[in-house]
Order: sequence, then C-alpha cells, then structure tokens
Amino acid sequence: MQTQRYALILSYDGSQFFGWQKQAQGIATVQAALEHALAQIAGEPIDTTTAGRTDTGVHATAQVVHFDTHAQRPISAWVRGVNAHLPDGVAVWHAQAVAPHFHARFDAFGRHYRYVLQSSPVRSPLLMGRVGWTHYPLNLDNMRQAAQLLCGEHDFSTFRAAECQAKSPVKTMYQITLSGSPHFIKMDFHANAFLHHMVRNIVGALVYVGAGRLTVAQFAEMFAQRSRLRAPPTFMPDGLYLTGVDYPPEWGVLRQPVPEWL
Amino acid sequence: MQTQRYALILSYDGSQFFGWQKQAQGIATVQAALEHALAQIAGEPIDTTTAGRTDTGVHATAQVVHFDTHAQRPISAWVRGVNAHLPDGVAVWHAQAVAPHFHARFDAFGRHYRYVLQSSPVRSPLLMGRVGWTHYPLNLDNMRQAAQLLCGEHDFSTFRAAECQAKSPVKTMYQITLSGSPHFIKMDFHANAFLHHMVRNIVGALVYVGAGRLTVAQFAEMFAQRSRLRAPPTFMPDGLYLTGVDYPPEWGVLRQPVPEWL
Repeated sequence: MQTQRYALILSYDGSQFFGWQKQAQGIATVQAALEHALAQIAGEPIDTTTAGRTDTGVHATAQVVHFDTHAQRPISAWVRGVNAHLPDGVAVWHAQAVAPHFHARFDAFGRHYRYVLQSSPVRSPLLMGRVGWTHYPLNLDNMRQAAQLLCGEHDFSTFRAAECQAKSPVKTMYQITLSGSPHFIKMDFHANAFLHHMVRNIVGALVYVGAGRLTVAQFAEMFAQRSRLRAPPTFMPDGLYLTGVDYPPEWGVLRQPVPEWL
Repeated sequence: MQTQRYALILSYDGSQFFGWQKQAQGIATVQAALEHALAQIAGEPIDTTTAGRTDTGVHATAQVVHFDTHAQRPISAWVRGVNAHLPDGVAVWHAQAVAPHFHARFDAFGRHYRYVLQSSPVRSPLLMGRVGWTHYPLNLDNMRQAAQLLCGEHDFSTFRAAECQAKSPVKTMYQITLSGSPHFIKMDFHANAFLHHMVRNIVGALVYVGAGRLTVAQFAEMFAQRSRLRAPPTFMPDGLYLTGVDYPPEWGVLRQPVPEWL
C-alpha cells in the first residue's frame, strides 16, 4: 500500500516540554505529543523527522517536520484534526503533501533563530519563560560589532556544547541582525546549521560584551581560540525561538515570516 | 509611633493568580502574595490599597498600590527585598515614599488598559494566556469606527457586568486607539474609571463588528440601549493588561509608559 509524505509547520512553547525529542514513556516532549496526535488522525503509528531538534525551554514559531502515512485524509485533518489532539503548548499551522524523497533535515540549507533579550533592573513576570533577561545595562553598538565578527564561514568551537554530536564545528553564519533597543533586543541568527547550544553560547558572550565584561577585541580573540573553556556561560533558553527553515524552492515548502508579535 | 506611606508600581502575570483581591487562606491572589512579601520586609502585617482590582487572568504592567508602615527601610528594600519574597508571577518595579493622605484609588483620575488580540485560523501556543484570540478575520477600519462612538462621557451599561458595584454607569472615555494589523491588534483604552468587565465586554462587541456579525450602526444602537442583555459575550481575560494609572502631578507618583515589548 502506497504511502504519502507530508510536511508540517508547527509552533510550540518550549517551556512546557522537555525538548523536541521523544524520550521514555511519560516524559512530555514535542515529538511525543505530535506523534500521538498524528496517530489519532492516521489510525496508525507515525514517526516524524524534524528539521532540527530543540532543547528544553526553546520555542519554535515555524518548526518543520515530515512524516509518511498510508492514511488518506484531507489537508485540514492534518491541521485542525491534529490540533484537536494536541496539548495547548503546541499547534500545527500548516500541512502540505510533499514529494516522497523530501527530507525535513537533510534538505534544509538554512535555519533562522531569534533570541529576545530584556535588560532591566527587575525581571518582568510577564516575560518569564519567553524572553532572556539580564540586569546588566547593555551597549548595543558593541554587541553589534562583536556579532558581525561571526558572520561568514568559521569554526564555531568556542560556542559548541561539549555534548555536541555535529561532524564538524565549521558552519556558515549568513547574517546576524540586532534590532530593538538596549532594553529589549531582538537578535536574529541565520546560518546553514547550528551546533548544540550555539545560539545560547553566542548570546551569553554578546551579553558579556554588552555589559562591558568583555571588549570586542577580547571577544574576537576568544572566538579565534576555538575553545569553549574560557567563554562565558550558556545563556538561558527562555528567549530562544526557531523561526524558520530554508529549503530549495523546488520542494515548494511554505516559508513563514517571523510573526509580528515576536 | 509614626507611619510612612509608600506607593509601589508592580507588574504581574494574571494567569497565575485568582485575581487581585485577597480571599480565603491558600488562594493565590496578587494582593495576598504582595502583602505576605511586604510583611517579611516590614516585620509587621501590611494592608495594601490598589488603584483598581483586576480579575483572574488579567495582567498588569503598572498597577499602583499604597500602604503604611512603621518600618524604616531603604527604598531598595521595598523593591529588591520584596521581590525576593514574591513568586515569579509578580514583581515590584518601583517604590517611593508619598504624602500620608495620598490614596492609590481615590486620587486616580484615569486608568489605562491595553487589550492585545490575535486573529488567526490557529491559536498560537506561545500567546496562550497572554493574548486574546479569535479565528474570525477582522475588519480593523470598522472596529475603529465603532470604538470612536464610545469616546466621551456616556452611560456604559451595555458593557457593565451584572455584579458591578460601581455607583454610576456613567464614565468618561478619554481615548481609544487601535493599532497594529488586522491579524494582531493592540487596543488602548483610557478612561477616568472602568466598570466591572467593561473592557472585555467592549472587546467582545468590537470583535463582532470586526467579524461582520454586527454593523457599526447596530453597535451604536446597542450602546444607546444601555442594556447588557443583547450585547455580545465578555471576551477572554488573556489579552487584558492594566498599563497605567493617572494621578495629579503634585503627588509625584512615577508614570511608566507601556513597555516596548507589549
């Protein structure tokens, strides 16, 4: 019996899950919740493959997954039907049939992350779990200068978690943009791929630069040393959002912009 | 022994509390949490008076309260000290000594509320509890036209909850501003005072106008009838924020703008 491959775009509140990847029975992960809901609609077990696994506490506005199924259902069943079986913390925005050899991970040539950071004397109760926070006043110009040093193809070992399983620490950072004000900074990162904890480690170092605890020159030197050992600590996951995945246009996968509310 | 009166400005996530007002022991309310924390710093029981009580699920970025104490503490004790005793869902932003006859409620001549509303086919998991939601596509121009009819001094009985204890249904709406896009609308309400559920009832009716379920003329007629009975239902509290309270400048109470992230 023939199977059909589908791509889904979904959004989730990472603070409600122990990361993306399914684990032992009873541990709430996004993948476990999604596969459970998909199985309800498909009437058969469903395995999903994601563009990129996210850690506990990390959010997504446009995560991409693919799966295969024998079930023949209208597209609305893979959106509204699946959503009816999902917990509040995750929702499918879009579903589409894709070619059988489309692969959510291997065909992705770029990933977009946004980190949202608040700098204020008191941490806002309304941003808890959604926005990173520092009490340091930040110099946004210095942070921008440091961020620009990361653009291009580089060895990102300075920002690589010890447990990272990537084959190579060399990645290409297409663009980093810091917008907003020094009190509330939106940092957009666009790269071909990211190492484990890479964005949170970069944010940790940029906060040091912004706070004057590292000069831009020291940041550059630390980056060139390709060692995690002397780098500032990993920043909290609260402000990190996977906002998009790039595929070659021939796959026809919908590309959603960063939502206006983020 | 002399007492000193203080004013505090605080922020809270209404989804974590059963409203402002303290209730029976063990029910989490903002007032109960605040008075408990204040008592820890003061070393004596503290009673607080607020500018306006908020319902379960309603947030504040700049609620104002006053209290009296015999305790002599530096201002930082009433901010950072109190925050150390508060749960994550509430924080004091600012404290100041005020004149002994300042009254957080009776001296307020204006209140500011913002309602944030998303219109989208799928409800965003990341906005749950923080933003109101409708699946209806909205006509923002029609909503603006209807909203303008409410400005000025009017009898707001159409938008008054049955259990409202205000002496009069006549209030003065200084201004209503609808900004953003039809997919994500920020509605700012500024009035001398608000009846119980007034903003949520207005928002419910404006959503009907935006969705084409009420014409602007029907909205006007319904408003003129001064009856809650035929009006659309109260909208969810999720998107409602108390964003400021106006006092005569002679009291010297700090006025905070709407935060840039809201």
